[in-house]
Amino acid sequence: MNIKERLLKGDRRACARLITMLENNDEEAISIIKDLYRYSGNAYVVGITGAPGSGKSTLTDKLAKEFRKEGKKIGILAVDPTSPFTGGAILGDRIRMNDLTLDKGIFIRSMGTRGSLGGISKATWGAVKVLDIFGMDYIFIETVGVGQSEVDIIKLADTVLMVTVPNLGDDIQAIKAGIMEIADVFAVNKCDLEGADRTALEIEMNLDLSENKDYRPPVVKVAASRNENIQELVEKLLEHREYLERTGKLKERRKNNAKLEIIKLAEEEFIRLIMDKTLEGNLLDNLVESVVSKEIDPYTAKDRIMSLINS
Amino acid sequence: MNIKERLLKGDRRACARLITMLENNDEEAISIIKDLYRYSGNAYVVGITGAPGSGKSTLTDKLAKEFRKEGKKIGILAVDPTSPFTGGAILGDRIRMNDLTLDKGIFIRSMGTRGSLGGISKATWGAVKVLDIFGMDYIFIETVGVGQSEVDIIKLADTVLMVTVPNLGDDIQAIKAGIMEIADVFAVNKCDLEGADRTALEIEMNLDLSENKDYRPPVVKVAASRNENIQELVEKLLEHREYLERTGKLKERRKNNAKLEIIKLAEEEFIRLIMDKTLEGNLLDNLVESVVSKEIDPYTAKDRIMSLINS
Repeated sequence: MNIKERLLKGDRRACARLITMLENNDEEAISIIKDLYRYSGNAYVVGITGAPGSGKSTLTDKLAKEFRKEGKKIGILAVDPTSPFTGGAILGDRIRMNDLTLDKGIFIRSMGTRGSLGGISKATWGAVKVLDIFGMDYIFIETVGVGQSEVDIIKLADTVLMVTVPNLGDDIQAIKAGIMEIADVFAVNKCDLEGADRTALEIEMNLDLSENKDYRPPVVKVAASRNENIQELVEKLLEHREYLERTGKLKERRKNNAKLEIIKLAEEEFIRLIMDKTLEGNLLDNLVESVVSKEIDPYTAKDRIMSLINS
Repeated sequence: MNIKERLLKGDRRACARLITMLENNDEEAISIIKDLYRYSGNAYVVGITGAPGSGKSTLTDKLAKEFRKEGKKIGILAVDPTSPFTGGAILGDRIRMNDLTLDKGIFIRSMGTRGSLGGISKATWGAVKVLDIFGMDYIFIETVGVGQSEVDIIKLADTVLMVTVPNLGDDIQAIKAGIMEIADVFAVNKCDLEGADRTALEIEMNLDLSENKDYRPPVVKVAASRNENIQELVEKLLEHREYLERTGKLKERRKNNAKLEIIKLAEEEFIRLIMDKTLEGNLLDNLVESVVSKEIDPYTAKDRIMSLINS
């Protein structure tokens, strides 16, 4: 059996293999997804984000277990911050060795990238498709909620869950504000800590300022490590899904996500294209020389490259 | 006098105006920079990054004061995390109201972006050029050290200073690792806190693993709010500059930065181009429709867009 057939039959190793190929920016993986794309569309994608230390991995695991009780098959993609230089995932080789990994209805994977600008988004978005084709009912993408690349990744989700904890610094709160606007459900984790009520209240106050009167993101206090209120959180996630489906907003959201993805894919190909075209005669290097010696400015250098692409 | 002449004469309002134009993605600002580019090249750019709460703003101010003692003119660009949806700077309207703002030898500016993907990098890099032409000797770019866009911004610096503090969580340390690799000087701020020695030691241990035997980034313990060891830190920054100049690595680094900037500028224009080209006949929207209904996959949609650009 080839890898396509194996994936459709639910072969975990085929699934893992394809995701690795995506991380390695292997074009064959893309062509396999193209062929199998019609089998996708069943999975519902939940993006789970939160500041470092918010306990979102633990919470993700607990959510997965809760969904398993209903017999749902769960894919988990843990996306790690990447280094711009090594291109490697910092936490990339972290493997969650817990009871979840023994459950055949769960597929957990840490995602890193082997290089290339924007590679982690492309690989993650590809992995979501693989898990969807693989037959997962829910796919959780878990990522640190800071930085544009993380926001790019989380934006493809159908429902975004933001995990927060009491007593993080104000600056951290401010950073999260970028995510706050795209969060559909909030979890205040470690709710046994002092300050949990205040954190929940602050989120509620922030939500009071929101424009959307149609849907108000719920704020759920949970204690993931003690398994408290996980079921309530699951209910809220399902309610958001139900809201999106009822109002036709799910289709709207998926359109936005598809648009974003297409553009990002084009952008990535463009970069490859200019790299190829400017390789001849060291054009890029010569332009760089001229910019550094102030003969031309970077904007003019850019114009010259653009004229190549169009010719 | 037009804005160009005013900038060259050191008119602060012309400088501020140009930076606002850059934030608004105003093409006129670019054409002004193109015209005046030959007047740039004097400024030395220091990127200052650190986790939220590391006190890097305070430290930046103290460094600026120290450099002022030598009569150096200082530009400070405080780059704020931006929201993907509003496109606005979260902390964008924060203005540092302190004694620095009264000093004519210092120009402080908070940078946000008014929208557009990658807009903040382009605007910041443009602002560096404006401040350079304006006659600043040193330009400090201060940004939160997380996420690809911040890394993109900080990478254009000649010297990168990473500010850390004792007792941040392990996850935060891990995130910073992406920055750690590009840092030239480390400051352990709030060095009066318990754990400062351990933090410094951890950085040193990390540095022991580094490949570069030619230059070892120094680790300086400081207490910015109490003005402790600021002078020592300045010395280390200057030593790094001296090292780069002596070994010819400054030119090499500026070449890399110019290359990165040219590519990023091209990328941004490309996005604008596909937006324009796919506007006709709602091509992009139609492709999106087909992707959502699983008629075609996003990779095929991307291919169709790329074929437009080349035709």
